[in-house]
Amino acid sequence: MTVRHVDDVSLEPVGAGSGTERQVLIGPETAPHFALRRFVMQPGGGMPRHTNTVEHEQYVLRGRARVSIGDEVHEVGTGDVVYIPAGTPHSYEAMGDEPFEFLCAVPNEPDVIEIVDC
Amino acid sequence: MTVRHVDDVSLEPVGAGSGTERQVLIGPETAPHFALRRFVMQPGGGMPRHTNTVEHEQYVLRGRARVSIGDEVHEVGTGDVVYIPAGTPHSYEAMGDEPFEFLCAVPNEPDVIEIVDC
Repeated sequence: MTVRHVDDVSLEPVGAGSGTERQVLIGPETAPHFALRRFVMQPGGGMPRHTNTVEHEQYVLRGRARVSIGDEVHEVGTGDVVYIPAGTPHSYEAMGDEPFEFLCAVPNEPDVIEIVDC
Repeated sequence: MTVRHVDDVSLEPVGAGSGTERQVLIGPETAPHFALRRFVMQPGGGMPRHTNTVEHEQYVLRGRARVSIGDEVHEVGTGDVVYIPAGTPHSYEAMGDEPFEFLCAVPNEPDVIEIVDC
């Protein structure tokens, strides 16, 4: 795979989230070090506070969301760049009337997701 | 760094290109495995055919370009996902009237750039 359009990649529901789907744009079968995914969260959807064993490098493509990262809460929108270190509790809550869409790159390493009680 | 806007990150000229600037959105001082950058190429600008010692995972944010990757030539636009394996000759030529903007993630490994005569 060298070039493909984001609309040609299937969206899969994310079990831990609500109103949340994910596409794997470039996966470990293609690239040796890290994967590029896109998440789409419908208004009111999101993901509860959780940790991952891998870091996240993210870029917001569209929409707005309230994102908690450790002790911080941010309202993010198009063009915001978000870094979530491995092991840091974080959550997403899509805001407004349009989907919240962002790219999220992660290393090709085992990822364990744990929901955090809060 | 957890959240910042793309417009708050400085743009630096890319010496090997023409009309081409680069921002490091998330760099190796922040993230352990890979870096997230954004490139902006003005209409008519681009980069000549070259190789890198690291792979590229890219997402087109805006504009159009003619991109060569090995033996292939693609016209890409917003929402196209581009994977360029390490060592594969590639080039960019921004087309149309607006800047060509794309994200480009690379592993945190030494990168040697070689211009390819063609």
